[in-house]
Amino acid sequence: MAEYNAPLTDIRFLLNDVFNCQTKWQSWPALKEQVDSDIAEAILEEGNKIAGGLLAPLNQSGDSQGVVWQEGKVKTPQGFKEAYQTIAEGGWLGITGNPEFGGMGMPKMLSVHFEEMLYGANNSLALYLVLTVGACLAVDSHADNKLKQQFLPKMYSGEWAGSMCLTEAHAGSDLGIIRTKAEPNSDGTYSITGTKIFITGGEHDLTDNIIHLVLAKLPDAPAGSRGISLFIVPKIWVNEDGSLGEFNQVNCGSVEHKMGIKGSATCVLNFDGSRGFLVGEANKGLMYMFTMMNYERLSIGIQGIGCAEASYQIAANYAKDRLQARSPTGVKCADKYADPLLVHPDVRRMLLNMKALTEGARIFSTYVALQLDTAKYSQDKTEQKKAKDFVALMTPVAKAFFSDMGLDACVLGQQVLGGHGYISEWGQEQLVRDVRIAQIYEGTNGIQALDLVGRKVVANGGQYVAEFVVEMREFIEQQQSEAMHTYLKPLQNAIATLEKVTAWVIDKSKNNPNEVGAASVEYLHLFGYVAYAYMWAKVVVVVTHKSDKDNAFYDAKLKTARYYFNKLLPRIYGLEQCIMAGSEDLFSLDDEQF
Amino acid sequence: MAEYNAPLTDIRFLLNDVFNCQTKWQSWPALKEQVDSDIAEAILEEGNKIAGGLLAPLNQSGDSQGVVWQEGKVKTPQGFKEAYQTIAEGGWLGITGNPEFGGMGMPKMLSVHFEEMLYGANNSLALYLVLTVGACLAVDSHADNKLKQQFLPKMYSGEWAGSMCLTEAHAGSDLGIIRTKAEPNSDGTYSITGTKIFITGGEHDLTDNIIHLVLAKLPDAPAGSRGISLFIVPKIWVNEDGSLGEFNQVNCGSVEHKMGIKGSATCVLNFDGSRGFLVGEANKGLMYMFTMMNYERLSIGIQGIGCAEASYQIAANYAKDRLQARSPTGVKCADKYADPLLVHPDVRRMLLNMKALTEGARIFSTYVALQLDTAKYSQDKTEQKKAKDFVALMTPVAKAFFSDMGLDACVLGQQVLGGHGYISEWGQEQLVRDVRIAQIYEGTNGIQALDLVGRKVVANGGQYVAEFVVEMREFIEQQQSEAMHTYLKPLQNAIATLEKVTAWVIDKSKNNPNEVGAASVEYLHLFGYVAYAYMWAKVVVVVTHKSDKDNAFYDAKLKTARYYFNKLLPRIYGLEQCIMAGSEDLFSLDDEQF
Repeated sequence: MAEYNAPLTDIRFLLNDVFNCQTKWQSWPALKEQVDSDIAEAILEEGNKIAGGLLAPLNQSGDSQGVVWQEGKVKTPQGFKEAYQTIAEGGWLGITGNPEFGGMGMPKMLSVHFEEMLYGANNSLALYLVLTVGACLAVDSHADNKLKQQFLPKMYSGEWAGSMCLTEAHAGSDLGIIRTKAEPNSDGTYSITGTKIFITGGEHDLTDNIIHLVLAKLPDAPAGSRGISLFIVPKIWVNEDGSLGEFNQVNCGSVEHKMGIKGSATCVLNFDGSRGFLVGEANKGLMYMFTMMNYERLSIGIQGIGCAEASYQIAANYAKDRLQARSPTGVKCADKYADPLLVHPDVRRMLLNMKALTEGARIFSTYVALQLDTAKYSQDKTEQKKAKDFVALMTPVAKAFFSDMGLDACVLGQQVLGGHGYISEWGQEQLVRDVRIAQIYEGTNGIQALDLVGRKVVANGGQYVAEFVVEMREFIEQQQSEAMHTYLKPLQNAIATLEKVTAWVIDKSKNNPNEVGAASVEYLHLFGYVAYAYMWAKVVVVVTHKSDKDNAFYDAKLKTARYYFNKLLPRIYGLEQCIMAGSEDLFSLDDEQF
Repeated sequence: MAEYNAPLTDIRFLLNDVFNCQTKWQSWPALKEQVDSDIAEAILEEGNKIAGGLLAPLNQSGDSQGVVWQEGKVKTPQGFKEAYQTIAEGGWLGITGNPEFGGMGMPKMLSVHFEEMLYGANNSLALYLVLTVGACLAVDSHADNKLKQQFLPKMYSGEWAGSMCLTEAHAGSDLGIIRTKAEPNSDGTYSITGTKIFITGGEHDLTDNIIHLVLAKLPDAPAGSRGISLFIVPKIWVNEDGSLGEFNQVNCGSVEHKMGIKGSATCVLNFDGSRGFLVGEANKGLMYMFTMMNYERLSIGIQGIGCAEASYQIAANYAKDRLQARSPTGVKCADKYADPLLVHPDVRRMLLNMKALTEGARIFSTYVALQLDTAKYSQDKTEQKKAKDFVALMTPVAKAFFSDMGLDACVLGQQVLGGHGYISEWGQEQLVRDVRIAQIYEGTNGIQALDLVGRKVVANGGQYVAEFVVEMREFIEQQQSEAMHTYLKPLQNAIATLEKVTAWVIDKSKNNPNEVGAASVEYLHLFGYVAYAYMWAKVVVVVTHKSDKDNAFYDAKLKTARYYFNKLLPRIYGLEQCIMAGSEDLFSLDDEQF
């Protein structure tokens, strides 16, 4: 069974040294009393214990047992219920929750790392948790106080779980065409009827109740996405005093058999006149749901990081232990029948690709979390506005680039183990199967790329990108030491490439809307590589100012950064050419020629 | 259940129009009487029936049932035995076999396409077949006539299967350190003792007997790979007259639980003093086994093509049928609630990536097969020598690039289906799981890349590559029409890049042997993209000379070729920079910094 150890040293380094979280938190009134470095450290330590000690041991057994559906009920794998309850009792469901209703009110900069640990240890179990956290966030952001009081405390406490009911059989990426109906009842509630599919955690045995957030259409609602409303539909009815009532006719018709995350119940849910509460105003449901979706999107990106880290740990340990063939430069371990795998350049290449991209992703996830915290807590309107722009710009990048690189990393991690990577024993093949979903759900990575290029780049004439470029250029100007030159030159070139490609896409899409989608995925990757370059440069600056920069951890950061700049960042020059070849060749074939 | 239709139109076009197989076959005495276009057509038609009608219907059930090990016996999934027997009775195991011992003596140019069909329809079942075919090839190439007569007829007829026993628990990529022993018996046979792992088709219920080809060490054999001998070790002893004797103590200890190819038995085999026949001379076993390995390597590359084709067929059909959102350029199907997926640029990008790379691979597989046939059948020594060089150069490229692109294609095919790609029903997730093994077994793709750059490029100072460059340049010189210019210019640049990078690697590796492995995987990819560009240019030439070049098939070829040149070939410029960043950054980290 594969062990999991949370990368605490790296996380501490990012929070304390790279992003100075303590200074930030102290400067924001809402956080000043809530969190300090001792609390943060305690959370990280405890998170590591939960991940490594509680979740990781249930990961492989959860995969082999899977969820079992019988007569509408879902049985989760052995140990999941007890683990969930332990986590609930620790208050972890409310880690970023509103303190007014029992949440811990912790910053996102902390919770992203907690989530990474959960995913790294056990994707399936983590999903039940993050769906609940996301549902709480939507309720807290858009429901009235009465509903918040009715639902949030028991969700933060983990007694009740949450789910997100969007997809229908004919409506996946295109939610405007959903058919689930909501009809007003005389008591102010609504009667919800329709079938939702692919509902993660739609039914399970972990909690006494499940609070479904459901998109549905009111009678006479406008067509398309402007006619969607959001409802709270509990599995078991919740009385006004918070006590449980009768079964609310939310029936789980089946669970899907799928490639991975087999311990997570992916449900067909039939709402058979189930009673629900309208959240906020009618017909604004999709906008409200985006609060949950954007939370989940970053979270699912972090799933990519968690899996990549877990895969790296297994692969690096294996490469040190496994003896196979001799180093190309001569025998290294004459006393053994072969040298460790780590002597082979291609094995090091695979590991360094994983390491540089996974650590790069972790820096960027902290950076995006900082933007989220700034947008939420900062008192400075200019700073807050910029942070909101960055959140809008970077959320699709985080979701898609983290998860695309997550699959790449897990495939490499599997490859390092050769045949042992393909068999179940070592855990690598499960990571590949589990991480693969992250590119698909919460909006496929194609949808993320369209959101990025269409809404976040082209629609505002590249304004958000320009703001990001300004920040990166200001950063470069501040660093003029000799040691930084190696890193700054490729970063400068990369920024220029991003600018050039951005201008090209904006210009071309004026005459041809297809240019947006044609460029989208490769643009998102190019953006991701440039953003990671900036992140790695930030790390390098911090390390070069350390008096003990020769210690193994700092030294590895410098060397991994150099690897990133020399061996990975140049990928953007292939992407640049592919993007700028435009959309024409995508549309030259007739449909029947496919 | 996913259907499979063999790409017969494409295969016929390649054989007849692009590679003029008929002319070749007529020019080679050994093939002249054996095969003509009618026979070829009959084989392709029948292959399609076997693949689509017999194997494909057992693909998903084979995956869900898997193989079952009980008390040393392996039960294959329902229907596998009957299907195998039908194929055996058709003589298909001997398709390329030696006619002297009952084989059909067909050219490789035909059998590569037959194999693609098998893999496209059912990877697990295909494996039992290709292992047998490969074992026959090694026996035919290296055993004496008596052994050939004793074993080949029943293997060609499919009554007995074959297996390939190399790997041991401590010896995977590094075969020099195997420990299985062979001790001479008084009757001229040998007593084999040792444990082999990861043996595909090592035990099963498909045939009356299994003929294991086993690598083992004789007493006092030299250390390392020069002390390995090859033995024929039947599961059930085979008497001199070909009748079956007693169980030969080849015990299957267990089967692996793995990510995919679940209908293929991956066995632990214990040879407990099993009797075997020495093949050829002692201590030359690894070289002999390379006959089988090189056959399997190309075959496993073709597994990548077969899976990619199958995934493409599902994805293209889905993209035409599934309605979701509207075209960016305005509503296309006003009478429907949404437009088909195929209107979306990124969906077309995914499909075109699959199509251009899969069809490109198919051209290259035919080209490599032509080299194999030329090496085997040509009477022209110069031509034969060049073909042998190309086989050596291109076998690792075919194995690794086909399978790497195969995984990419299946991941894209899965992505086109969104959530439906992740659930088992549609077959896409199985293809991802099944194709993944192709990058690992028969020598990992890292090992292939080392073979390419180390043995086939650097070791001969780039001579094979230079020969290939000469051929490509001669081809370009012969095409001077205006219509070809669009394709020839990027091909010329690509060839120049290949030359430049080749010279760079050869030069750098003189002083640092680590440069070989550091460049290897990215060099192999660069080589693959350049080779595909040459292949696509060949196709374009053929189409531009057609009087009916406007027909949908030819027109699609031209457009797909243009897509390849504009949108995929530029990837080499990212690879070029990554390669030429060298090995230094791979070795800057100490082992404990991983």
